[in-house]
Amino acid sequence: MPIISSQDLLSLGERIFIAAGAPPAYARLVSSALVESNLEGHDSHGVIRISHYIGYIKEGRLQPAASPKIIRQNASTALVDGQVGFGQVGGQFAVDLALQRLQVGQSIVAIGLENTFHVGRAGDYPRRLCDAGYVGIAWVNGTFTSAAVTPYGATQRLLGTNPFTIALPTQGSFPWVLDYATSVSAEGKLRVARDKKVPVPPGVIVTKEGQPTTDPEDYYAGGMLLTMAGYKGHCLSLMVEALAGILTGNGCGALPHTQKPGNGMLLIGLDIEAFRPLAEFTGELGELTDALHQAATAPGQTGALAPGEVEYRARQQRSVAGISLPDQTWRDLSNTAIELGVAVPAIDGH
Amino acid sequence: MPIISSQDLLSLGERIFIAAGAPPAYARLVSSALVESNLEGHDSHGVIRISHYIGYIKEGRLQPAASPKIIRQNASTALVDGQVGFGQVGGQFAVDLALQRLQVGQSIVAIGLENTFHVGRAGDYPRRLCDAGYVGIAWVNGTFTSAAVTPYGATQRLLGTNPFTIALPTQGSFPWVLDYATSVSAEGKLRVARDKKVPVPPGVIVTKEGQPTTDPEDYYAGGMLLTMAGYKGHCLSLMVEALAGILTGNGCGALPHTQKPGNGMLLIGLDIEAFRPLAEFTGELGELTDALHQAATAPGQTGALAPGEVEYRARQQRSVAGISLPDQTWRDLSNTAIELGVAVPAIDGH
Repeated sequence: MPIISSQDLLSLGERIFIAAGAPPAYARLVSSALVESNLEGHDSHGVIRISHYIGYIKEGRLQPAASPKIIRQNASTALVDGQVGFGQVGGQFAVDLALQRLQVGQSIVAIGLENTFHVGRAGDYPRRLCDAGYVGIAWVNGTFTSAAVTPYGATQRLLGTNPFTIALPTQGSFPWVLDYATSVSAEGKLRVARDKKVPVPPGVIVTKEGQPTTDPEDYYAGGMLLTMAGYKGHCLSLMVEALAGILTGNGCGALPHTQKPGNGMLLIGLDIEAFRPLAEFTGELGELTDALHQAATAPGQTGALAPGEVEYRARQQRSVAGISLPDQTWRDLSNTAIELGVAVPAIDGH
Repeated sequence: MPIISSQDLLSLGERIFIAAGAPPAYARLVSSALVESNLEGHDSHGVIRISHYIGYIKEGRLQPAASPKIIRQNASTALVDGQVGFGQVGGQFAVDLALQRLQVGQSIVAIGLENTFHVGRAGDYPRRLCDAGYVGIAWVNGTFTSAAVTPYGATQRLLGTNPFTIALPTQGSFPWVLDYATSVSAEGKLRVARDKKVPVPPGVIVTKEGQPTTDPEDYYAGGMLLTMAGYKGHCLSLMVEALAGILTGNGCGALPHTQKPGNGMLLIGLDIEAFRPLAEFTGELGELTDALHQAATAPGQTGALAPGEVEYRARQQRSVAGISLPDQTWRDLSNTAIELGVAVPAIDGH
């Protein structure tokens, strides 16, 4: 597998997006968000997406220069139309609005985002609120990878993978970030498995007839992802459709007449100091991280980690060692660059 | 199993709590919340708790006449000290504060509750916001049933069962309510299994050595509940400790020096009309319920349901047929009543 530094990857992505018509600031924002995902070990949401995004731009489904627009707002809320632009641009716009309101003294704010392209990792947005010292919470639904998940008890593509995320500042070396699909797996993880030509674990997907399978190709042949924890994940996925899709007006895959092309997001920011001094909160959260590390290890396991710790460890490793990409991902990325007249860096292993 | 009407059960509970020193309004609120749980099929959070609560009152750990007190507040948030009173009283107080703020024009509010006794079903509080037309969200941690759940990867009682809940108004016959423990099962479900002398399903608990078991007695001998969906539920459970426990100052079981005796709760209320007209939101949610009902049924299943639908069906059945209680639950309840000089109604089947 080719290995590339995060700096080279960031620059390559940036130049590709500029060549495809994105303003430089947007190109950098999007490329950076994707490379950050690779750095944190989530290749499913990393540069594997670049060639997909460029494909959508060519088809006219993603407007690379579109700027988000506020539809309605008040002192503590706003609803934003992403104008079918980059989701990372819409998402950052939502974060900025949340921070503005929090910084002028609102204790809790909610920003809705609709009609935006793929926002990337849902956790990026709460994470940015948390980096500024606030609690960040978000729900993201998607209609463009729509209807990938079957409701519990049914066999029909009806729900998105519908991630849910919470980020909290701590006094430890990394913030606490929960960020996951309400399906057993993110759809992007299936793409990675397909690119690597490896099976997915049992209990993740079913065939289009509803039969168990581990072949990711069965998913792309009309199969379905299952919800995490069965009925519990089913309920949570439906709540994400409601909060991120229906509340924002983005719609949901199960109701085609409501559906706009892309992601919907509801982002909540909360000022910790409305309840307790920030340092008390982050200090106790750091202690809780320590308590996890000190807990007795389960037989055959390696011990308990805090939310976001896996990603923190991946970042430490990959920012030194570089990012190793599957051959298929690198081929797609290089071809995309070449088609747009963008120079591809020489890299190890290729 | 004895069968009793919800009206008789409500009255019995009310008289028991009054006899134990609760003001009549509090007695009615608590008894009603417990009976509602039985009506909706969640016996684990129903009148099985009455004898436990009375036990805690006798021990001086629950103050039946204590009134909640606001510690700090601003236009959109408040932090409430439950004063070790009934959690149902503290929870209703939090709901009232949320509604007051929403009704004077705040679009989003957050109320923290600490130092309160068992709040009962976490979903009751978002549900009351949703009955008034708002989105309700809550996280509840507990330190008095503390440390019942092992973190993923560890074998140590460190986390509470830490429920998480969202309630949304709909145009259908029932609101959407998600309300569940972030452990595989609520602790109360183990109590019910123990009372009924039946095993719990595999994958719910482990022995104190971390070995799989289905005997609920193993849990009460120092065993542990597992988190739902493994690592995902582990992360969510930790977020509940942080938001409901650490943010409110209620503390958490894993950090004994922070710990107050009872439940902590963070309750968020959101005005749907800051984003869309209420009728549009509830209408599309009703359509999504219809889409679930129309989805193809999975082999061996009975079809997909909306969040809260199981409870709605239980209520329809039990409000007519009455509530059937395990013998042990009824014996405990009767004995508690008799000890307090409260008359026990004659009931079918006993």
